[in-house]
Amino acid sequence: MLTRTSIDIEAAEAVIADATARASAMGVPQNIAVVDDAGHLVAFRRMDGAKFFSIEIAITKAFAASGARKPTKEIGPATQPGAPGFGAQALLGGRFTTLPGGIPLVVEGAVVGAIGVSSGSTAEDQDVAEAAVEAFNRRWNAGRPARQG
Amino acid sequence: MLTRTSIDIEAAEAVIADATARASAMGVPQNIAVVDDAGHLVAFRRMDGAKFFSIEIAITKAFAASGARKPTKEIGPATQPGAPGFGAQALLGGRFTTLPGGIPLVVEGAVVGAIGVSSGSTAEDQDVAEAAVEAFNRRWNAGRPARQG
Amino acid sequence: MLTRTSIDIEAAEAVIADATARASAMGVPQNIAVVDDAGHLVAFRRMDGAKFFSIEIAITKAFAASGARKPTKEIGPATQPGAPGFGAQALLGGRFTTLPGGIPLVVEGAVVGAIGVSSGSTAEDQDVAEAAVEAFNRRWNAGRPARQG
Amino acid sequence: MLTRTSIDIEAAEAVIADATARASAMGVPQNIAVVDDAGHLVAFRRMDGAKFFSIEIAITKAFAASGARKPTKEIGPATQPGAPGFGAQALLGGRFTTLPGGIPLVVEGAVVGAIGVSSGSTAEDQDVAEAAVEAFNRRWNAGRPARQG
Repeated sequence: MLTRTSIDIEAAEAVIADATARASAMGVPQNIAVVDDAGHLVAFRRMDGAKFFSIEIAITKAFAASGARKPTKEIGPATQPGAPGFGAQALLGGRFTTLPGGIPLVVEGAVVGAIGVSSGSTAEDQDVAEAAVEAFNRRWNAGRPARQG
Repeated sequence: MLTRTSIDIEAAEAVIADATARASAMGVPQNIAVVDDAGHLVAFRRMDGAKFFSIEIAITKAFAASGARKPTKEIGPATQPGAPGFGAQALLGGRFTTLPGGIPLVVEGAVVGAIGVSSGSTAEDQDVAEAAVEAFNRRWNAGRPARQG
Repeated sequence: MLTRTSIDIEAAEAVIADATARASAMGVPQNIAVVDDAGHLVAFRRMDGAKFFSIEIAITKAFAASGARKPTKEIGPATQPGAPGFGAQALLGGRFTTLPGGIPLVVEGAVVGAIGVSSGSTAEDQDVAEAAVEAFNRRWNAGRPARQG
Repeated sequence: MLTRTSIDIEAAEAVIADATARASAMGVPQNIAVVDDAGHLVAFRRMDGAKFFSIEIAITKAFAASGARKPTKEIGPATQPGAPGFGAQALLGGRFTTLPGGIPLVVEGAVVGAIGVSSGSTAEDQDVAEAAVEAFNRRWNAGRPARQG
């Protein structure tokens, strides 16, 4: 048997609260999703004014970051024209994205889930996700940036 | 032009909090979704222990209740063999369900959204959704059961 | 954080070996799938002669049994005409099935995965799945039938 | 009438065993899929620690290699911007991929199936697939690299 650690609802909603605080400070309403280590949705919030179009995108960003075990932003370069991963976005029935805004949540070297943010520009989405991950790391990793081992 | 009233994130999370309180009292962890009047997800919570399998089902119940403007439970009879709606569950790519647990949220006669609950038995799911709708009506409709006009 | 136990590849392939032995003794080639507690595929074997048509069905049976935390066979009655779950088969993009042949794998009260079998009659599929689960329980649960707590 | 030769389960599991040995030596857990000459799954193994995200991708690589009758890596150049196959990744509902890691299995000039590997970098995936195909050729083609005639 394998033992796995997954984010729980309390930790997930703390991530969403941190992301919301950042998005509010920026004045950009956002869709914010948190999935667990298996890619399954744990918590979601659409701030008033966030695009309905981006609900599914936020969830997909979280799914892809949890699944690839890296920020969606870092998957992007390998999928550009000429790179070996070109066209990967068409996989998984459209649940593979390299749009910035998805970042894994890591505790003690293990991916326990991921956040996905979407409704602003990709830079704004990424900014909000990073702020939430920094707060998560302060709580769970003594403030160290945490990537899987 | 049309003016529409949609549930906002604050009201949606109050619905989720009420549903959570009821599910906790029953000892049955649940997936709880709230969608707006357009069927789009506003807020979601997977209580620790709720089935991953029922995440999508909770969202679908809310979608169907918002879209049909009636509780999913009440759609069921019309879709039985011999009834004119037989087979409707296959519509909308599987986003149409008659499983109990989805109920519209109504203010001043207008459907502003819906709740969907899934992970327990269908009776448990329905119970939680009803408790959350009753609390919603106390806040928004002076305690009267509210159905669209 | 939540801690979860998932079936590993060694235990999964032992389940497939047991199912294969039973199917061989019956003279019915089968598709045999094992998923983990999150519904994700761990191991799969198509015995020579098993129907290609039933590959996806075997995987779906395992997915549904893991997700519903009960044998697919036991979900069936609640989805018959007149019952509250009627039409549930259309949910989850077709990944919800009540066909016999999917059974959860349980260790110490927790669903750690599930087996799905398909290519014979539903009675043959169920027979093979049950034989594999009995062998699993001898290894992991001191031979006791194990259902989630 | 046509006579076709397909990989059987014994040969397929030998391919998976060889791929596993290579992946273990590299220290990179992998998802390994083998499909037959019709693109249908014959055997699958998720090594402990391989990404759930890459299960479907491994199967898709095998499907595409079997279907295109060439390594997925070699399909890539023709699908780049400006090339005639641009955008092909969007075909087949996302079951067409040019990511390295899918290679046909060929016996006496005929594609009898394919292997697909995914969870590492694309270079690691390709390395494992190539090692398994070399071992397959030693068994079935007297060690000669075998491509369809």
